[in-house]
Amino acid sequence: MSAAPPSREVIYAWMRGLQDEICAGLEALDGKGRFSEDQWDRAEGGGGRSRVLHGQHIEKGGVMWSGIEGMMPEKIATGLGIAPVHFHATGVSIVLHPINPWVPIIHMNVRYFETAKGLWWFGGGIDVTPHYINPSEAKHFHGQLKAACDVLSTDTYPAYKKWADEYFYIPHRKETRGIGGIFYDRLNQEKGHTKEACWNFTQAVGKSFLACYRPLFLENYQKSYDDQHKLWQKVRRGRYVEFNLVYDRGTKFGLQTDGRIESILMSMPPEADWVYNYQAKEGSPEADTLARLRQGIDWINYT
Amino acid sequence: MSAAPPSREVIYAWMRGLQDEICAGLEALDGKGRFSEDQWDRAEGGGGRSRVLHGQHIEKGGVMWSGIEGMMPEKIATGLGIAPVHFHATGVSIVLHPINPWVPIIHMNVRYFETAKGLWWFGGGIDVTPHYINPSEAKHFHGQLKAACDVLSTDTYPAYKKWADEYFYIPHRKETRGIGGIFYDRLNQEKGHTKEACWNFTQAVGKSFLACYRPLFLENYQKSYDDQHKLWQKVRRGRYVEFNLVYDRGTKFGLQTDGRIESILMSMPPEADWVYNYQAKEGSPEADTLARLRQGIDWINYT
Repeated sequence: MSAAPPSREVIYAWMRGLQDEICAGLEALDGKGRFSEDQWDRAEGGGGRSRVLHGQHIEKGGVMWSGIEGMMPEKIATGLGIAPVHFHATGVSIVLHPINPWVPIIHMNVRYFETAKGLWWFGGGIDVTPHYINPSEAKHFHGQLKAACDVLSTDTYPAYKKWADEYFYIPHRKETRGIGGIFYDRLNQEKGHTKEACWNFTQAVGKSFLACYRPLFLENYQKSYDDQHKLWQKVRRGRYVEFNLVYDRGTKFGLQTDGRIESILMSMPPEADWVYNYQAKEGSPEADTLARLRQGIDWINYT
Repeated sequence: MSAAPPSREVIYAWMRGLQDEICAGLEALDGKGRFSEDQWDRAEGGGGRSRVLHGQHIEKGGVMWSGIEGMMPEKIATGLGIAPVHFHATGVSIVLHPINPWVPIIHMNVRYFETAKGLWWFGGGIDVTPHYINPSEAKHFHGQLKAACDVLSTDTYPAYKKWADEYFYIPHRKETRGIGGIFYDRLNQEKGHTKEACWNFTQAVGKSFLACYRPLFLENYQKSYDDQHKLWQKVRRGRYVEFNLVYDRGTKFGLQTDGRIESILMSMPPEADWVYNYQAKEGSPEADTLARLRQGIDWINYT
């Protein structure tokens, strides 16, 4: 925990270090797969390190770092309600698609943004998309998030959990993407927090990733499954695609601003399926999961 | 060919008949699969017949008819630049995903729209998405479309072919969806055609569907393929998903207006895949196809 406001250089270095740490942790979990890296440059300034793993348990995992800068595109400045100005933005984005359908999909993003005019903010989120919802695992996951949020304030978890419920929602399916998590954006002094406090919180969120994912992985990756479980996994991956392409702001932003397409769409799953009018059998684990894809569930106290 | 302007009842009946005819033709081609039907009602008025086939050669085929009516939603009226008014709309939509990667994906839509204030138009299109582009098949396909377009005027094919090139394009991939076809909308007397002429053209487009698809299917459905061909097919299906969810107006309209989701998304493929940074080998059939996913190719005279 730092007591002084972090410089941009410190934040950039920390974000790269977070990518390294998480990649190492995921390679250890998978036990076989190794991340390969593509470094890329952005014509207008900055670039990134896109790392992807195809493991023995993690079918497709992406851990991306980017640090970009330059004049803000008109469209984005307009969206922010400011005049175009030089900006810096850095962040880490993760999506993991496991082979075993009992292991959930997980997503994390932490990001930092600043402009030459002294405007700055942090944003991010973590959410989990189980193919099969396990309430005790959901409780553990949300408990970890609450602990990270408490670094900022005890009001934070309820507020950011609610924000995630609203954000990670698929209106045309009337389903949440999964069991939610936390989501936040434009976190800065206007919300009553010092930059140091926002920064400590950001670090807590980033560091919580492996703590969140490890048990979700370890308790499930060796469970047996059959073709029906795999089919359901593919159907849920299809929903993930629908959310990301139709609603996810980061993805839409990337598509509209002509970003590096393979990095933007690294979140897309392997082997997704759209089964016409799939109907989960009454009383099945699939029906049970569908019934829990709802906003507003208090997972920490869920019984 | 009719000489008098068709009534709405005639158009509705013809659209349903087209669905019947195409379903029968596709069942004959597949040789085994049979369409199952879901009839649905729309709360605000009208409904549809959604028919889906899972065959021995057509992996997932949807042939949908709908005929809806009611007060126009505010959002749509605004888009059209008119005051909300009672409307009728009917059409047939088709998407076929074959098992064999040498058989292309095909799509067709023909539709008719009218309002209580005497406004009316036709719209539609046919386009083909080969996993592997075969120029002589593309030539045949575009020749069939030209013949249908010539029913309206000899200017029609070049104009609607260009429109399809612009419409069926994936900007973030800098690729066309396939070899294009024709696309048109708001065709009515304002374009200098009588309603009879527009109607005759619509019928010619609808009737051309089986003539377009049969040879594309018959010349390819027995060709042998391996895992690499299947993987490429799944990658191309992923692109199809990207187009439909991000750009297709019909899909976006359906999602925004809370239509019957299973009918709107029947176009989604089975078994799509997103392979991070897929690179087609130089000189491979995949690279050859990628090089031809370009706007402005004159397929009829392509050499």
